[in-house]
Amino acid sequence: MKKIVVIGGGTGNFTVLRGLKNYDVDLSAIVSMADDGGSTGILRDELGVLPPGDVRQCLTALSNSSRLMRSLMNYRFENGGLGGHSFGNLLLSTLEKVTGSFEKAVEEVGKILYIKGKVIPVTTHHVHLKMILKDRTVLEGEKEVYLSQKIDQGYKSIFLEPYPKANPRALDEIHNADLIVLGPGGLHTSLIPNLLVEGVRDALVETQAKKVFVVNLMNRKGQTTGYKVGDYIKEISKFLGKDIFDYILVNDENPPEQLIENYAEEGDLVENDVHDERIRATALLGALQEMSKGDRIKRSLIRHDSKKLAEELMKIVHHL
Amino acid sequence: MKKIVVIGGGTGNFTVLRGLKNYDVDLSAIVSMADDGGSTGILRDELGVLPPGDVRQCLTALSNSSRLMRSLMNYRFENGGLGGHSFGNLLLSTLEKVTGSFEKAVEEVGKILYIKGKVIPVTTHHVHLKMILKDRTVLEGEKEVYLSQKIDQGYKSIFLEPYPKANPRALDEIHNADLIVLGPGGLHTSLIPNLLVEGVRDALVETQAKKVFVVNLMNRKGQTTGYKVGDYIKEISKFLGKDIFDYILVNDENPPEQLIENYAEEGDLVENDVHDERIRATALLGALQEMSKGDRIKRSLIRHDSKKLAEELMKIVHHL
Repeated sequence: MKKIVVIGGGTGNFTVLRGLKNYDVDLSAIVSMADDGGSTGILRDELGVLPPGDVRQCLTALSNSSRLMRSLMNYRFENGGLGGHSFGNLLLSTLEKVTGSFEKAVEEVGKILYIKGKVIPVTTHHVHLKMILKDRTVLEGEKEVYLSQKIDQGYKSIFLEPYPKANPRALDEIHNADLIVLGPGGLHTSLIPNLLVEGVRDALVETQAKKVFVVNLMNRKGQTTGYKVGDYIKEISKFLGKDIFDYILVNDENPPEQLIENYAEEGDLVENDVHDERIRATALLGALQEMSKGDRIKRSLIRHDSKKLAEELMKIVHHL
Repeated sequence: MKKIVVIGGGTGNFTVLRGLKNYDVDLSAIVSMADDGGSTGILRDELGVLPPGDVRQCLTALSNSSRLMRSLMNYRFENGGLGGHSFGNLLLSTLEKVTGSFEKAVEEVGKILYIKGKVIPVTTHHVHLKMILKDRTVLEGEKEVYLSQKIDQGYKSIFLEPYPKANPRALDEIHNADLIVLGPGGLHTSLIPNLLVEGVRDALVETQAKKVFVVNLMNRKGQTTGYKVGDYIKEISKFLGKDIFDYILVNDENPPEQLIENYAEEGDLVENDVHDERIRATALLGALQEMSKGDRIKRSLIRHDSKKLAEELMKIVHHL
C-alpha cells in the first residue's frame, strides 16, 4: 500500500484528506502548530495547550465514525463564555490537560472517531509565528499574519519563536513516504510554518518520496496578490533551498465571472505561468454553492472539490 | 436479576450507584432535573439545555470505561470563559444540541463510558424549583434553595415551575423495580424535586417494589437543622401522602469529635429517633480524609462509604 503524507493545516488539509480517505492508501497528516486565532487562540491562552483547531479538522476528515460524532466534533458554541469554541477543540484540549500530552490526546480522539491513518503535529513545542515586514512592522502570531494586508509589499523574515525541533514522528513519516502532498492552504499561515520547524526542510529534501504541490485556487489580497503558480513554487522553494516538486496540481476550470467579482475584495484567481512537464492542469472546482447552516442563506464559494483532487492525486500514486 | 432503582441527584446518587455497580443487579438511576447552579446553571442559561450535572455524576458512577475517560468527564476548567465548567457537562449539553434530545445525549455518553445500567431524567421538561418561605421570601431556583439559611423556619410551599409530567421511562422503572432506593442527598434540593414531578408520587405509592430510605449523615444548617431520622421520613411522607418505606438505613458510627466540631458551621449529625423494625443501623462512614487535588491539602469529610452502603443494600436485596 502506498504511503501518502499530507502537509499543511486547516481547511486545505481537510479537503485533501477527505478525498484520499476513500482510497486504499496509507495516509498521514502532518499539521502546523502555529495557529493562535479564534477558539484555538483562546484555548492556548487560557489552558496553555497546543493548538487543537487544525488537528481537529484533520481528524474529522479522516473519521469513519457516525455522522453524529462528526457533528459533535464540529459543533460550535454561539453564546456566552463558550461562544466561538468548537466542541472538538475543547475535547482535544481537555484530553491534553488530563493526559499531559497533546499527542496522546490526538491518539484518543483518533480512536473515538475511528480515523483512517494518522494525524501528527509537526512539532510538540509551543511556538508562535512571527513575521517582520519590509517597513519593520512586526506581526506577532499567525492571526496577525493572517489579517495583514501588507505582506505583498515584502517582508524581511518569517520564523517560529522559539525555534522548535520537529516531532520525530513527523520526520519519520516524511522519510518513509511514497508521495508527499503540500497544499492547498494559506501560504504564510498554513504551509510555510511547517517548513520553519527544525529538521522538516532537510527531511523533505532528503526523502525519496515524490512531492506534489497543490496550488491554491485564489490569491489572498494583501498577501499573495497577483501571485501566479510560479510565484508559489518560488516562495516555497526559498524555504527549502531548492525546488523539490515532481508534480504541480493546478485548476484550469474557470469559475463564473460573477463569482470572481464577488471575490474581488478577498483576492484574485491564481493564473498558471508554469508550462513544464510537472504541471497537471485539470478541473478541480467544487460545488460553487453552499448552504450556511445558521441562517440558511446560500453562500457562493470557490473551493477545491475533494473528490476531484483525490482522483488527480491517485493518478500520480498509480504511476509511482 | 433483581431490579434496583435509585432516585435522587448529585453526590448521593453517585455514592449509591458506585457501590451497587459491583453487584449482579439491574441498576437504574432516576435523576432530578431541577439543578440550576454552577456549570449546569450557565449551560441552561446560555444553551437552553436540560441540566447535565447530576446526570453526569450518575453516568460516571456507572462507568466501566478507562480511568482516562472518567477523568475526562470530571475534568473541571479553571480559567477564562470555560472556568467552572466540567467537561462532561459540556459533552452532554453539546450532544443535546446536536441531537436535539437530552435523552439521546445521555444514551450516547452512556455508550462512550460503557455504563452498567441506565440513567433516566425524571422529566424531560425544563423546570425550575421554587420555594415560598413562611416569611413570604420566594426562593427562585435550586441554587437559591440550596443557599437559603431560613428553610428551617418553615415554608409554605415548594414546587416545580412549570408543573412537569414525568418521563414515562422513569415511571416504568419505578413500576418494574424490586427495590427503590431514595437518598442520601439534599432533602429539598435533590430528593423532593423528584417527588414534585407529576406521576412520580403515584408510581411510588402503587409499585410493588420495596422501598428503602438512606438517611443523610449530616443535617444542613438553616435547612434541616436538628432534624432526626423521623423528621426526614415525615418530610418525605408529606409529598407522598403516606410513609412508604420498608427499610430505613441509618449510620450508627460516630465520627471523631474534632470533625463534628469542624462541621459545626455547616450542620449537625443526624440522630436516630426511630426504633421500629424498619431501621437498619450500621457503620456507614467512608474514609474521613480526602486529598484535595488542586492544593494538595487534606480535607476531612463526613461521607457515606459506597462499599458499606452497597453491602447493606444488598443484604436487603437478598431478602426480597
